[in-house]
Amino acid sequence: MPFWESVNGLELREFRPGVRSTAELGQGLNMVCMEIGPGLQDTGHEHPFEQCGIVTEGRMEMFIGDQRRMLAPLEAYFIPAGVRHGWKTFGEPVKVLDVSGKPPQA
Amino acid sequence: MPFWESVNGLELREFRPGVRSTAELGQGLNMVCMEIGPGLQDTGHEHPFEQCGIVTEGRMEMFIGDQRRMLAPLEAYFIPAGVRHGWKTFGEPVKVLDVSGKPPQA
Repeated sequence: MPFWESVNGLELREFRPGVRSTAELGQGLNMVCMEIGPGLQDTGHEHPFEQCGIVTEGRMEMFIGDQRRMLAPLEAYFIPAGVRHGWKTFGEPVKVLDVSGKPPQA
Repeated sequence: MPFWESVNGLELREFRPGVRSTAELGQGLNMVCMEIGPGLQDTGHEHPFEQCGIVTEGRMEMFIGDQRRMLAPLEAYFIPAGVRHGWKTFGEPVKVLDVSGKPPQA
């Protein structure tokens, strides 16, 4: 569907433990609304495509390469291809609208 | 820079008449914060890459193919490649965080 209602009110499904999401998967762009539960973390990973997004509810810590920041609603991030990044949530769930660019599937 | 403060408070520069923006231009993803002035419109165009985003302030009408919607803050859109789309603003400026995916430059 081309339009989404408020990203903070979308119906989400469990994507992996503690993370619920809904997505629009394109040929080269994936747009994902994600709710990450409290007290979770991704200690770091990297991938060969760029990724960016914006926090829409709650606060989360994120690191991208050697930079680290606590992100509040309406703060955004841009992760260059190949750069290690990760995140951590605290006492509240966090919602993020995340976009990754990846090469069209073969 | 990997992190942006609140997208509604970023320093923007004139991009074209009535539109001010700041951008993070990657290899395959462009993340742009745009402020579109009141009373403007794009009657429609299309391009061979996907584009998506979220309104962060104000309201704007957007059409994507044969669907049309008034978008309020935190509402999102996804424009498939090659599909005609356009927008219209009314009595207030509108802020959008927009992401387009485009093939790496030759």
